[in-house]
Amino acid sequence: MKQTVEQWGMWEITIHGPQKGNPFTDFRLQGIFTGKNEEITVDGFYDGEGMYKVRFMPSFLGEYTYRTQGNFPEAKTQGSFTVIPPSAGNHGPVRVAGGFHFAYEDGTPYYSVGTTCYVWTHQPEEIRQQTLNELSKGYFNKIRFCIFPKHYIHNFRDPETFPYEGTPVDNSGLTEENFTYSVDFSGNQWDFTRFCPEHFRRIDRAIEELRDRGLEADIIVMHPYDRWGFSDMGRKADDLYWNYVTARYSAYRNVWWSLANEYDLMKAKTLEDWEHYASILCEKDPYHHLRSIHNCVQFYDFARPWVTHCSLQRQGLYRHVEYTDELRQRYGKPVVWDEIAYEGNLDMGWGNISAQELTRRFWEASLRGGYAGHGETYLHPQDILWWSHGGTLHGESPARIRFLHQILCETPGLGLRRGSGEFDEIVGVPDSPTVADGSYEIHYYGFGRPSFREFRKAPEAQYLAEVIDTWEMTVTQVGVYSGKFRIPLPGKEYMAIRLQKL
Amino acid sequence: MKQTVEQWGMWEITIHGPQKGNPFTDFRLQGIFTGKNEEITVDGFYDGEGMYKVRFMPSFLGEYTYRTQGNFPEAKTQGSFTVIPPSAGNHGPVRVAGGFHFAYEDGTPYYSVGTTCYVWTHQPEEIRQQTLNELSKGYFNKIRFCIFPKHYIHNFRDPETFPYEGTPVDNSGLTEENFTYSVDFSGNQWDFTRFCPEHFRRIDRAIEELRDRGLEADIIVMHPYDRWGFSDMGRKADDLYWNYVTARYSAYRNVWWSLANEYDLMKAKTLEDWEHYASILCEKDPYHHLRSIHNCVQFYDFARPWVTHCSLQRQGLYRHVEYTDELRQRYGKPVVWDEIAYEGNLDMGWGNISAQELTRRFWEASLRGGYAGHGETYLHPQDILWWSHGGTLHGESPARIRFLHQILCETPGLGLRRGSGEFDEIVGVPDSPTVADGSYEIHYYGFGRPSFREFRKAPEAQYLAEVIDTWEMTVTQVGVYSGKFRIPLPGKEYMAIRLQKL
Repeated sequence: MKQTVEQWGMWEITIHGPQKGNPFTDFRLQGIFTGKNEEITVDGFYDGEGMYKVRFMPSFLGEYTYRTQGNFPEAKTQGSFTVIPPSAGNHGPVRVAGGFHFAYEDGTPYYSVGTTCYVWTHQPEEIRQQTLNELSKGYFNKIRFCIFPKHYIHNFRDPETFPYEGTPVDNSGLTEENFTYSVDFSGNQWDFTRFCPEHFRRIDRAIEELRDRGLEADIIVMHPYDRWGFSDMGRKADDLYWNYVTARYSAYRNVWWSLANEYDLMKAKTLEDWEHYASILCEKDPYHHLRSIHNCVQFYDFARPWVTHCSLQRQGLYRHVEYTDELRQRYGKPVVWDEIAYEGNLDMGWGNISAQELTRRFWEASLRGGYAGHGETYLHPQDILWWSHGGTLHGESPARIRFLHQILCETPGLGLRRGSGEFDEIVGVPDSPTVADGSYEIHYYGFGRPSFREFRKAPEAQYLAEVIDTWEMTVTQVGVYSGKFRIPLPGKEYMAIRLQKL
Repeated sequence: MKQTVEQWGMWEITIHGPQKGNPFTDFRLQGIFTGKNEEITVDGFYDGEGMYKVRFMPSFLGEYTYRTQGNFPEAKTQGSFTVIPPSAGNHGPVRVAGGFHFAYEDGTPYYSVGTTCYVWTHQPEEIRQQTLNELSKGYFNKIRFCIFPKHYIHNFRDPETFPYEGTPVDNSGLTEENFTYSVDFSGNQWDFTRFCPEHFRRIDRAIEELRDRGLEADIIVMHPYDRWGFSDMGRKADDLYWNYVTARYSAYRNVWWSLANEYDLMKAKTLEDWEHYASILCEKDPYHHLRSIHNCVQFYDFARPWVTHCSLQRQGLYRHVEYTDELRQRYGKPVVWDEIAYEGNLDMGWGNISAQELTRRFWEASLRGGYAGHGETYLHPQDILWWSHGGTLHGESPARIRFLHQILCETPGLGLRRGSGEFDEIVGVPDSPTVADGSYEIHYYGFGRPSFREFRKAPEAQYLAEVIDTWEMTVTQVGVYSGKFRIPLPGKEYMAIRLQKL
């Protein structure tokens, strides 16, 4: 019986090969996969213990043949398989759609509601399982996390594994009090030519666990929160790393590439470096997963052709997601606010807003035609903060974010854009040429507390009016109206009115 | 025994003169007041029933003589009086001080916390007394109100009196539903050469009642909310009006001049008109009371020499008082945010923010070295809204505004300016060359909810640290600290930390 794999599933070939020398640098493996509609060449990678792997994601149904080749005798293999229809919940990779939005490759709209747990994969299994338990609740459909471990306030424990063979700098004596961004990495002993496969296998598993729960894995390939020197390995080691990561993870349909978190804090890197890494992704990821790069202060130039969407951190304390419509216009790409401050109570301003305010930012971003990301930073006696470690959620915003996602799913088309409205409201309308103008609109009042709102519509049209309490997560039908009409509201914050033409 | 008047009190001369013809235009009266340090010439005005009046405010102690003259026989009088020290609570008129702040003429700092009741003087006596009762509670030290009546949503009742002899347009049938800004004033019959003195006497009484309660009367001389034509009387009638108002009210020490509310909505007026009215004030108000003009959308050019301070309405939904420090720099004058949205639940975005948010705006404005104004717009069964009519306050912000004022009074110097701080805080420091740098600072966290904050000070200096809960209106001493120290906070919004060097 012929072997099968589902469309957008992963076909993995394992070849036992040489363990001598340095298998990560001495030996090469490639796979060429040929179906009726595509021929894809991908690099393999060494996964330790003599195992070389090639991973492939078929984008089409039907028969595929493949052959592998490399610079060691066992590399030469060949075979075939059949690609069968995707199983329930598998809609393929997420793509940019309609200019400013996303859809899975099968055409299903994808309304991004993200979260961030920077190093959840590097935590002890008990915490990892808590994280997965929370992620199973459908609050989010994207999560950002790092391949490298993280050194930062509330992040001094060593990770479960390291990405390279060697020994890390001693972490005893690190405290919140004496925290600095390290620039002297001399206490570390690493061989940047020898990966520690288990570290990367943990990421494999994480991507799979996310995939099985309907979450996109927004992988942060580099970041500046470092005491080990992974942020400053030099071009040669960087290239080895980028190629390894690309070969290893590209065949997962739910991968997004975030070249870096806060790239502008990585002083050892130049813009040319980032463009270079991007070129590796463009060349070596044959599926062209979504690609972006995330700022601390200065936005990257999202107009660069390799950038598929804007991955933004807010630049101002007061206005941020409110710039969504302007940034759509500036960059002509989807606007994803991956960091807009976190629900929590840290001493830092980026980590202590209320659930109400974070929810407001989500609504504001979404109704203006963008997307937002969650994070949670409540102080914890064992320093387990969702934002970095995952664990258990303590806040009130996740349920509200899930509710927003339900509303977005009820919205015709791929997403929203800002429609015209009064100065004190955000009107979201379907951002789709296939949806008739004026057929659907959500009026959001944010921190305003109107007791009613009036509308003027054509007398011949009928509108179903609903009041949405974005905080209490209720949708209440008010009635069917025509012409000039008034919708009562409870005079509290965070309310919206939805009008649907009948 | 010689008659006396207190410094900055009012000396009023009443002369009985002709009632024939049109006393408002046919007869003129002037008073010349001479003391050791000043000689002031002021116009008199006709107050009806044959009474002509001259009002004078002495700015210096000691002996004054005066003579009156005019174009009718009785106009010629003379006399003298003694100016005695001011009574308790009389500090003289408010002046600009220290560039960006205010002080009474006796040097007492004046920290402006204003409110707005546009037409409270035109309401029935019962409502007026309710207003005065609220104003006696010390929430505010300035109130903005109009001389002319107001036509607007929630403002369709006729005023108790009209400023001119004649008959107003019929107001029956006016509803929220059919409200428009009137442009056709033809239903009115007014004689713009004959004032109705009782209308202006009501303003006299109001100014006095405010004065006796420690409030400045920020008089709005013109405004656009009009169904009677007072916003479009023509230059000749306007000049008569401006001269009448100036002659009548200038001698009250607590008068401020607001040339207009939302001047940019008064389409019949040009910039040249406003400059002309300003020139009348500059010429005819010998005491040079504070002068400004309030925008709807477009700020007036506050750099004009006659403008003593910026009287601002917010231009944006999200940022407004946050521009205080920039506007101080742009105009080099005090920044007074007279409209930053009102606590309430109206359908309009300018009238439905929470008490928390309005209080936050007050703190933000004040710590950045400006001042803010309150308003309240809760729907009311009899359409009595504080913002226009006065009456009873229903909201929670007034008590918090009074608390802020107490904190400002405890602050050394004339007021605050923004000091350096973290991105997520506003640090207010004394804006005064006589206060030592670093001796006093208020760190305000707005909507941030830090659980603690850390400070680094010189090890040899000692600081008294207090936690201010701007919402609960408490000041809690935490301790005395030196060097690096941490102040615990409750992890909720609207908190501040005050540090005072010992």
